Amino acid sequence: MISDLGEVYMSAQNPIFIPGPTNTPDRLRQAMQGQNIDHRSPEFADLIIPLLDGLRPVFGSSDAATMIFPATGTAGWEAVVSNLLSAGDRVLMPRYGVFSARWIELCHRHGLLVDVIDCAWGDGVPVAQIEARLAADHQRRIKAVLITHNETTTGVRADLEAVRAAMDATSHPAMLFADAVSSLASIDFRMDEWRVDAVVAGSQKGFMLNPGLAIIALSQKALAQMPAAGLYRSFFSIADMLAATRDGGYPYTPPTQLLYGLRESLAMLQAEGLANVYARHDNIAEGVRKAVAAWGLSLVARDPSCYSNTVSAVYVPADRDAARLNQHMAAAYGVSVGVGLGQLQGKSFRIGHLGALTRPMMLSGLATLEMAMLDLGYPIELGSGVAAAQTHYREGDQSPNSTPLAA
Amino acid sequence: MISDLGEVYMSAQNPIFIPGPTNTPDRLRQAMQGQNIDHRSPEFADLIIPLLDGLRPVFGSSDAATMIFPATGTAGWEAVVSNLLSAGDRVLMPRYGVFSARWIELCHRHGLLVDVIDCAWGDGVPVAQIEARLAADHQRRIKAVLITHNETTTGVRADLEAVRAAMDATSHPAMLFADAVSSLASIDFRMDEWRVDAVVAGSQKGFMLNPGLAIIALSQKALAQMPAAGLYRSFFSIADMLAATRDGGYPYTPPTQLLYGLRESLAMLQAEGLANVYARHDNIAEGVRKAVAAWGLSLVARDPSCYSNTVSAVYVPADRDAARLNQHMAAAYGVSVGVGLGQLQGKSFRIGHLGALTRPMMLSGLATLEMAMLDLGYPIELGSGVAAAQTHYREGDQSPNSTPLAA
Amino acid sequence: MISDLGEVYMSAQNPIFIPGPTNTPDRLRQAMQGQNIDHRSPEFADLIIPLLDGLRPVFGSSDAATMIFPATGTAGWEAVVSNLLSAGDRVLMPRYGVFSARWIELCHRHGLLVDVIDCAWGDGVPVAQIEARLAADHQRRIKAVLITHNETTTGVRADLEAVRAAMDATSHPAMLFADAVSSLASIDFRMDEWRVDAVVAGSQKGFMLNPGLAIIALSQKALAQMPAAGLYRSFFSIADMLAATRDGGYPYTPPTQLLYGLRESLAMLQAEGLANVYARHDNIAEGVRKAVAAWGLSLVARDPSCYSNTVSAVYVPADRDAARLNQHMAAAYGVSVGVGLGQLQGKSFRIGHLGALTRPMMLSGLATLEMAMLDLGYPIELGSGVAAAQTHYREGDQSPNSTPLAA
Amino acid sequence: MISDLGEVYMSAQNPIFIPGPTNTPDRLRQAMQGQNIDHRSPEFADLIIPLLDGLRPVFGSSDAATMIFPATGTAGWEAVVSNLLSAGDRVLMPRYGVFSARWIELCHRHGLLVDVIDCAWGDGVPVAQIEARLAADHQRRIKAVLITHNETTTGVRADLEAVRAAMDATSHPAMLFADAVSSLASIDFRMDEWRVDAVVAGSQKGFMLNPGLAIIALSQKALAQMPAAGLYRSFFSIADMLAATRDGGYPYTPPTQLLYGLRESLAMLQAEGLANVYARHDNIAEGVRKAVAAWGLSLVARDPSCYSNTVSAVYVPADRDAARLNQHMAAAYGVSVGVGLGQLQGKSFRIGHLGALTRPMMLSGLATLEMAMLDLGYPIELGSGVAAAQTHYREGDQSPNSTPLAA
Repeated sequence: MISDLGEVYMSAQNPIFIPGPTNTPDRLRQAMQGQNIDHRSPEFADLIIPLLDGLRPVFGSSDAATMIFPATGTAGWEAVVSNLLSAGDRVLMPRYGVFSARWIELCHRHGLLVDVIDCAWGDGVPVAQIEARLAADHQRRIKAVLITHNETTTGVRADLEAVRAAMDATSHPAMLFADAVSSLASIDFRMDEWRVDAVVAGSQKGFMLNPGLAIIALSQKALAQMPAAGLYRSFFSIADMLAATRDGGYPYTPPTQLLYGLRESLAMLQAEGLANVYARHDNIAEGVRKAVAAWGLSLVARDPSCYSNTVSAVYVPADRDAARLNQHMAAAYGVSVGVGLGQLQGKSFRIGHLGALTRPMMLSGLATLEMAMLDLGYPIELGSGVAAAQTHYREGDQSPNSTPLAA
Repeated sequence: MISDLGEVYMSAQNPIFIPGPTNTPDRLRQAMQGQNIDHRSPEFADLIIPLLDGLRPVFGSSDAATMIFPATGTAGWEAVVSNLLSAGDRVLMPRYGVFSARWIELCHRHGLLVDVIDCAWGDGVPVAQIEARLAADHQRRIKAVLITHNETTTGVRADLEAVRAAMDATSHPAMLFADAVSSLASIDFRMDEWRVDAVVAGSQKGFMLNPGLAIIALSQKALAQMPAAGLYRSFFSIADMLAATRDGGYPYTPPTQLLYGLRESLAMLQAEGLANVYARHDNIAEGVRKAVAAWGLSLVARDPSCYSNTVSAVYVPADRDAARLNQHMAAAYGVSVGVGLGQLQGKSFRIGHLGALTRPMMLSGLATLEMAMLDLGYPIELGSGVAAAQTHYREGDQSPNSTPLAA
Repeated sequence: MISDLGEVYMSAQNPIFIPGPTNTPDRLRQAMQGQNIDHRSPEFADLIIPLLDGLRPVFGSSDAATMIFPATGTAGWEAVVSNLLSAGDRVLMPRYGVFSARWIELCHRHGLLVDVIDCAWGDGVPVAQIEARLAADHQRRIKAVLITHNETTTGVRADLEAVRAAMDATSHPAMLFADAVSSLASIDFRMDEWRVDAVVAGSQKGFMLNPGLAIIALSQKALAQMPAAGLYRSFFSIADMLAATRDGGYPYTPPTQLLYGLRESLAMLQAEGLANVYARHDNIAEGVRKAVAAWGLSLVARDPSCYSNTVSAVYVPADRDAARLNQHMAAAYGVSVGVGLGQLQGKSFRIGHLGALTRPMMLSGLATLEMAMLDLGYPIELGSGVAAAQTHYREGDQSPNSTPLAA
Repeated sequence: MISDLGEVYMSAQNPIFIPGPTNTPDRLRQAMQGQNIDHRSPEFADLIIPLLDGLRPVFGSSDAATMIFPATGTAGWEAVVSNLLSAGDRVLMPRYGVFSARWIELCHRHGLLVDVIDCAWGDGVPVAQIEARLAADHQRRIKAVLITHNETTTGVRADLEAVRAAMDATSHPAMLFADAVSSLASIDFRMDEWRVDAVVAGSQKGFMLNPGLAIIALSQKALAQMPAAGLYRSFFSIADMLAATRDGGYPYTPPTQLLYGLRESLAMLQAEGLANVYARHDNIAEGVRKAVAAWGLSLVARDPSCYSNTVSAVYVPADRDAARLNQHMAAAYGVSVGVGLGQLQGKSFRIGHLGALTRPMMLSGLATLEMAMLDLGYPIELGSGVAAAQTHYREGDQSPNSTPLAA
């Protein structure tokens, strides 16, 4: 059973079903309305220090160094890369969507040598190839493996547990970095268990806040390697950030309102319970997938074991332009779903199902999609997807492939 | 076609589908956040005077005296009755639901002699009987006919045009009063055309605001009769209210934040266009009625020509307790519909469909109702009502029995 | 010249120093933003019942019946009078300002026989005359003594303890009613100790909320007398209100958002502590009075023992028009003080110092008043009143005549 | 003693007089509350494109390329430096406070060769030395002169007109960069007239918003030089940013709520008129300076021609610890002024007087400072500084040294 708590206290619906920024509950919007304070006063220390502690459980870590940069989530990539690696370092990265591709491009710009593993879009993370590449790296030149935990383009979740097992199998000492921007606080993440060395998240997805925070956690191993890294950095200096926040300060003007919001967001996540949050996302997501099947459409993600619980990318029939659907649905009904990106542009749309979302809200999105598709001549039976999702939602079950929840 | 404007700019869903208070759009919630001002300054005059003018078109009048009492909508009944009538006066009132019954009780308490016409709940306003009673009143002792324009208990809209025709047919000089609390600003109202002498509305229904305002319009005929009325009144003195607001003042502390909200509400209604507002309500309501039919359930309202476009009362199967459905739906899914009232308690639930409401929002309510009904063993097919509503919504048409809109 | 626009529209401190409505803190404004709920659900019971209990300490009572009408504070007068008295009843009322005069007028309209004791404006409550009138009422025909606890016109606080003593001295059984709209939650009130039978307050003064609630407490003695009272009442029926709220309901649409606000207001008052709230008002008020003395101006209130801690009425020099000062101060500096009322119009202005107010905020008002007075040629030395207030504020003391606080 | 709690948590005026983040007006706080939108929809283009155009007048430019990075103001330094310069490039920078020192440190970290001109803190920008250094740079190796337009540490405004004249006098081709974070939108800035090539501002000062935006303008000359620059950049890539926003997009998740706020902030600045905004800041600032003089204290800034109109740094008497004053004022009165920074720590405090500020608000801060200083035994006469400021404020004049306003 999913917890009722989320249903009841989260519901104020902004009609966007994009994979982030998400719908922001009133409670968080109010929290972010706080007035500015003197960030050089003890009042600020009382804000920032508990926040950094409170983030650790969400990362699934007991001892990570957590930090919050006043920039969007993707900026966190740069912070991690530029603080933990040096120009000329070699990294291993699969490319299976727009966001993994962007991170690869960022690494190129920072002078890294990137070993790219290109995958078909829709496939999961190529564990076997990662293992093979690491095994072949006899000189241990690969400094880090960089994985997009949740590829928003395709609705694919990377199996980081398997990646870790592959790395262990080769006894390769490379660090493991994860982009969890569109998964953290929505999908179970176990930094300690999977021994992830750097994790990047943002405020505008599972945390249900406005964009503007890059939220990062580093393992002790990563911290120990940091001083040797030699890329240029200043605004993104992790050493400066950790030194300042350790004493309740901040290296420059802090994003006070977003920090107020994050405090409240953590309180909401704790009140619902992280396990319930993950189960709610799983339940809602599986209902969406059952609706897609009822419509006779296909998910971009091929393997059920790697379905994302925060976003589903859906192929439109081959003779349709998905962009038309996005435009029509927004214009005719005032509701948005995400557009297809990169090579999936025009071929797919994306249903975001994360953050402050309930089953009744999701059914609104599915029902509206049905009308919009039929308006454009898709061979859809009205109510069919809704009924499939309702059937799943009534039972409140998790998907068969859901990650088993931590106790 | 319904206007897109309403869909796009109203959408932030509070999961209540009760017949008021309604969902309050962000824009209005922000407007009601304004700080207090000195209500004895010219700033207040600039607020109140245009408001009173701006209300007239919503009442369908060009010359009514409009006023706003800082109390809930039902208090408006008392203001109208106690200012326009005197103890011992005779009035004619049909009783066909809880709200008409309450107004009758109020008239009793104020010492009026009430000729009650009792109707079966679910029937429309008894035009023929009204005509008969007036025709029989040879001494013209009936001072006023009091009609509940929209009986929220049963989802019945009174045909005021027919009532006026009946009154005219008898050449009876009685005044005509209407309780339009749950209809004004949602359903076409034509005060001048129907020659209604007193109309009462509230802030928390079609105006989409917080409760707290009784909004009243009086015809010139009513105003002329006012001085002769002799019931006790002080807080509700219309004479005091009109005298004070004429010069931009207020007889006591004004409800400034609600007035800010009303200013913005009028701006929203004007932006969408009243005809579009009425058409949107009609379209959404007809979709709900089609869903009810698809479920095999019956409306309390019997005659399609008097269906209300703001609320639908629905009978549950005879072997069910409707109250259980209300409780279960709120507890399991966090969504509320209205309970059955009075003799319909336990026998019906009520779907509110008024105010800041869009088709995607309404589909969310219908889909959730389906799940809740099936949970309780109702013989409902998931998606059936949703599909019926979707079919109607896609076409964007008005109901066959909708009041033709004024040009 | 600098632009006035910036002054007027930028002030995050709400620049009003009127005796209510007061400045509303962010925390309360946010609380009043809550969405509408189904007021027929258990959620509403959980809101209203603790509120009615939480109000009692603010009234200084352990067993009063508390109730909240959705109307402005002054409507509470009517509720009390029309529920506890009958047409033809005799009441005793001093008149010493606009608000006591208005309450007298209301009693007249309700058919009461009012024994008026006219006092010079600026004098305190005429205890000796009240005692004499009661003593002379051998037939015990006076049903109630009605006192304006805080006469906002003159800045005079009535000594209810002395009134009670006078009533006791005559062993007269009359009830004692108090209008505490502009004092409750700002000035110590002891309903039980003073045996007050009916107290009326509002949301927009000491409770720091928007206008819209009449907050009432009745003694058990008053409740016992209620059924015999026979004035017309419907919206203001206390019997209906008590019957409905006893079970967590409400007799009509409740003012949900204001109730949310009141819950938060009570939490703020409790967090600061009522004794601290009263001491803060006393401290700020005494600073204002010292500033007035430093300016060489006179208070309307004559006797220090009856100075009000929520408002000070100040005479302008005889050759000045106080209204000009109000207008100029608002136009030139964007800051409002209250206007003189009734016979004091043009002769006095009023400084409100109640609610969400701090010493730094009050100093802003005093400093601005100094500029505005000098602009108009008042013989004022800039900084003189500010310095007098600062001296008092630095010490944080209470005024010599402050009511000793309850332990 | 009155309770401090009330003072601290009730203040609707945000009681901070720090040099930013500033007090945020309700209107902007509401604007920043908007829900998230689909940033890949045309709705986003309609937001971003007019914003970039609307910023130009605030920079004093008709053709600058404007851009907005989702990071704090100081991050703008890095964007400018890393996009317009290459490692090994030589730059000329005066150091006369903490913020110019930090910018220098950032340049060092990016591998630039920095010619530092060290000045006494409190002095203005060293125009003669800049000219001399440029004149001596026969090989034209200095690529840019970097100036902190408003050194918040000392309350000194740099005379950029004079810097430009010095550069012209040497016919040196170096670019001119300015950090205007704490001056833009408060103090007249003339990018085109002074031929500044890169200007950096932030959202949380003159724009009165939450922190979170680095707002940048580049001259056409700077744009033309950009492609040649070779520092690492990704998140801060100006080429990516300009390419994306040109078509109404954004290179990553945009800070939508802050953009809504900025749109409203520009509307407020336009409504008041930039010339009036500057005059208001000048008037308020000069009143503060007169208060400081009346107290017998000294400004850190030595030359009246370089007084800052957004912040005044004030020396405390030599036997006092300024930090004590900051702490006491916050603890006893709930009002903050800025602390002394760097070598001025403990020796000075800083009064911020910028953004959404009025004369009455400033007087509140000055009056509170007087109490706090006297509490700590400073030889201050209560009311003295207030009176000096009031005298200036009543006249509404500009300071004798104010920059003459553009027509």
